[in-house]
Amino acid sequence: MVDFDLRSANARLRASNPLIQCITNTVVQQFSANVLLAIGASPAMLDHDADAAQFTHIANGLLVNFGTATNQQFLAADAAIEAANADSKPWVLDPVSIGAVDFRTTRIHRAAGSGPTAIRGNASEIAALAGVGLGGRGVESTDEVDAVLPAAATLARTTGAIVAVSGPRDAILAHIDGVDHVARLDGGHSYMPLVIGTGCSLGAVTAAYLVGATTSSARFNAVVAAHAHFKVAGEASATGAKGPGSYSVNFLDALYTLDAKQLAGAQIEADTIEGPQS
Amino acid sequence: MVDFDLRSANARLRASNPLIQCITNTVVQQFSANVLLAIGASPAMLDHDADAAQFTHIANGLLVNFGTATNQQFLAADAAIEAANADSKPWVLDPVSIGAVDFRTTRIHRAAGSGPTAIRGNASEIAALAGVGLGGRGVESTDEVDAVLPAAATLARTTGAIVAVSGPRDAILAHIDGVDHVARLDGGHSYMPLVIGTGCSLGAVTAAYLVGATTSSARFNAVVAAHAHFKVAGEASATGAKGPGSYSVNFLDALYTLDAKQLAGAQIEADTIEGPQS
Amino acid sequence: MVDFDLRSANARLRASNPLIQCITNTVVQQFSANVLLAIGASPAMLDHDADAAQFTHIANGLLVNFGTATNQQFLAADAAIEAANADSKPWVLDPVSIGAVDFRTTRIHRAAGSGPTAIRGNASEIAALAGVGLGGRGVESTDEVDAVLPAAATLARTTGAIVAVSGPRDAILAHIDGVDHVARLDGGHSYMPLVIGTGCSLGAVTAAYLVGATTSSARFNAVVAAHAHFKVAGEASATGAKGPGSYSVNFLDALYTLDAKQLAGAQIEADTIEGPQS
Repeated sequence: MVDFDLRSANARLRASNPLIQCITNTVVQQFSANVLLAIGASPAMLDHDADAAQFTHIANGLLVNFGTATNQQFLAADAAIEAANADSKPWVLDPVSIGAVDFRTTRIHRAAGSGPTAIRGNASEIAALAGVGLGGRGVESTDEVDAVLPAAATLARTTGAIVAVSGPRDAILAHIDGVDHVARLDGGHSYMPLVIGTGCSLGAVTAAYLVGATTSSARFNAVVAAHAHFKVAGEASATGAKGPGSYSVNFLDALYTLDAKQLAGAQIEADTIEGPQS
Repeated sequence: MVDFDLRSANARLRASNPLIQCITNTVVQQFSANVLLAIGASPAMLDHDADAAQFTHIANGLLVNFGTATNQQFLAADAAIEAANADSKPWVLDPVSIGAVDFRTTRIHRAAGSGPTAIRGNASEIAALAGVGLGGRGVESTDEVDAVLPAAATLARTTGAIVAVSGPRDAILAHIDGVDHVARLDGGHSYMPLVIGTGCSLGAVTAAYLVGATTSSARFNAVVAAHAHFKVAGEASATGAKGPGSYSVNFLDALYTLDAKQLAGAQIEADTIEGPQS
Repeated sequence: MVDFDLRSANARLRASNPLIQCITNTVVQQFSANVLLAIGASPAMLDHDADAAQFTHIANGLLVNFGTATNQQFLAADAAIEAANADSKPWVLDPVSIGAVDFRTTRIHRAAGSGPTAIRGNASEIAALAGVGLGGRGVESTDEVDAVLPAAATLARTTGAIVAVSGPRDAILAHIDGVDHVARLDGGHSYMPLVIGTGCSLGAVTAAYLVGATTSSARFNAVVAAHAHFKVAGEASATGAKGPGSYSVNFLDALYTLDAKQLAGAQIEADTIEGPQS
């Protein structure tokens, strides 16, 4: 069993103000930048193939998301991933749009095989990346988190990444010292999936929390802390919200004002998954 | 005369949760996605020429808007339009930026001649597409809706599309069984044109309402319902707004909370246009 | 010494409703468009190399910002700058991301040498453009405004541009008739740098205020007025804000509602810089 220390993870984030390079889709760039600023990180969206990798050497972490990828972004991501790996910097893959269309499915599989520190998606995306299920229709999940846990555990083992499945009840899976760990997180609100970018920006936040986490346990703790930050802020944001518009405004406020005590109050259930190893 | 049934149009939308592919400008992608989510549709902005058409076969409807088009988007739109036509799926053309610059004017005319289910623009854009007037300066209308009605009716006849002219008083034109029908809608608010994307996202909403409308009358009804949704929500959003910022937040809330009864209360005036047929 | 007349600058802006072409990064396009609409200008983000310059001949002013530049945008900017210069239309360069990566640093230096009417950036960006300092990490400033004043004055002299350094206390530098003038502006709020685009959109606002300013003094006055508009609105926006989300909404409202009397109340300190001339 793993004991989570969300306060430490948040304290490290606040102290380091990490610079996160996001090669991400244009739909969520503004929201993701505001989310990173709200939690105490700095965003940079440089995605030109001529200088993306050079910037990765300056940044502290990297997010790769091919939601509206251009050829420029595909090439930039290849180079940035190589640079992040060379520097041992954390990078997160968001497999959004996998399964729906062949061209980018190929590119996402290639990225998944390039050593991401974490992979974050919804249930249908994680299922598609693991080679099961039917894939999603875009950002919104059509499968269920529970059903995808075995596939997610396999994905964690085969890629070496921590695998985070977002949904009404998030699941974070990590394969540490031969054991499959899973953390389940409750919270959030039904308005959350009605605000574009609440999923995609969580990939950027995960990268920010991972900066400075040097052991497998610390990385697992960091990914759980990132998701807890969203779950707690997402629940608090419903107060006074009249719909997804005001909820979205509240969410940025709540991400910013959330303190360590609130974060430590996140509803987490930790367990291990038993069963046949691959 | 046409009897509009906005409740049915909205009920069909809510029941089907249509997936709308938007090949649209980067300025309004986030807002358009949030608008689609608020009304009960799902957005996807895939616009790569290598897989856009494959995704169109999965999606339920398509929006094409060349406001910040790249070569990739121009090619993606060509393929997606072909796929939508092959599948008999509804697609909407927003002729934003027509008339101002030759390169994209050529592309917009080509799209208009490819069988759009509906065309939605402001008065100056519709005038430019119909070959009259001076074209707009971008998104904002400089002409008047009334003045453009004859040109819009001609455009509806020659393209086979329902033509929607947005303005302080919207006009929707449909050529059905040899008769030119027009519906006029009041509502909205003076803050509405001060929020970027309230025009462009209406094109996406129009595509969402068109999903499942199988007759000419049903399509006319669907386009009117889409515009009524915006007019009613746009009027309600002024309550408590202190400027275009808070109005924009209210607008997303109002799009979401609008119920069938409110929608049915839209101020619509239906008529036919008499005169020389082309 | 210069006497500023912010009321006149604002009155000219409101009367002319200038159309501002923004070749800018995709992260801030929506926010920049909403900011331009709020102050009484019209935005257009056309950035295709095939027609950008043709549009510059229609527009009243131009902003160039290579934050997420594509090859298309680099080529479009080259052509648009040439068109703006040919028409004697004001254009503003935002050197965001200079210094961090070689490829776009080269392009930014080339733009800076092409006769911008104004250059607006934070302290580290201005330092990098002037060839001193270490460059920034993206949008956020890491240096201080005061320290960069000598370099900014040199930059104003060598480029012929008015140089605006954004920070907790803005500095606007102009070299007029052999004298280095500087205006310092207080105001704003600590939430301001936590809202993405409050820097980048100020470049667009600066272009809007410059439209119709035909003398060196009038241009200096216009750039100061643009910055004062942001400082005053930015300070007022803190009222009722619970974090950067609600602050951002308030800011758009405040930009819109700000009247000439409030603008004239901006805290400005004007001075000249003495010392060796280049």
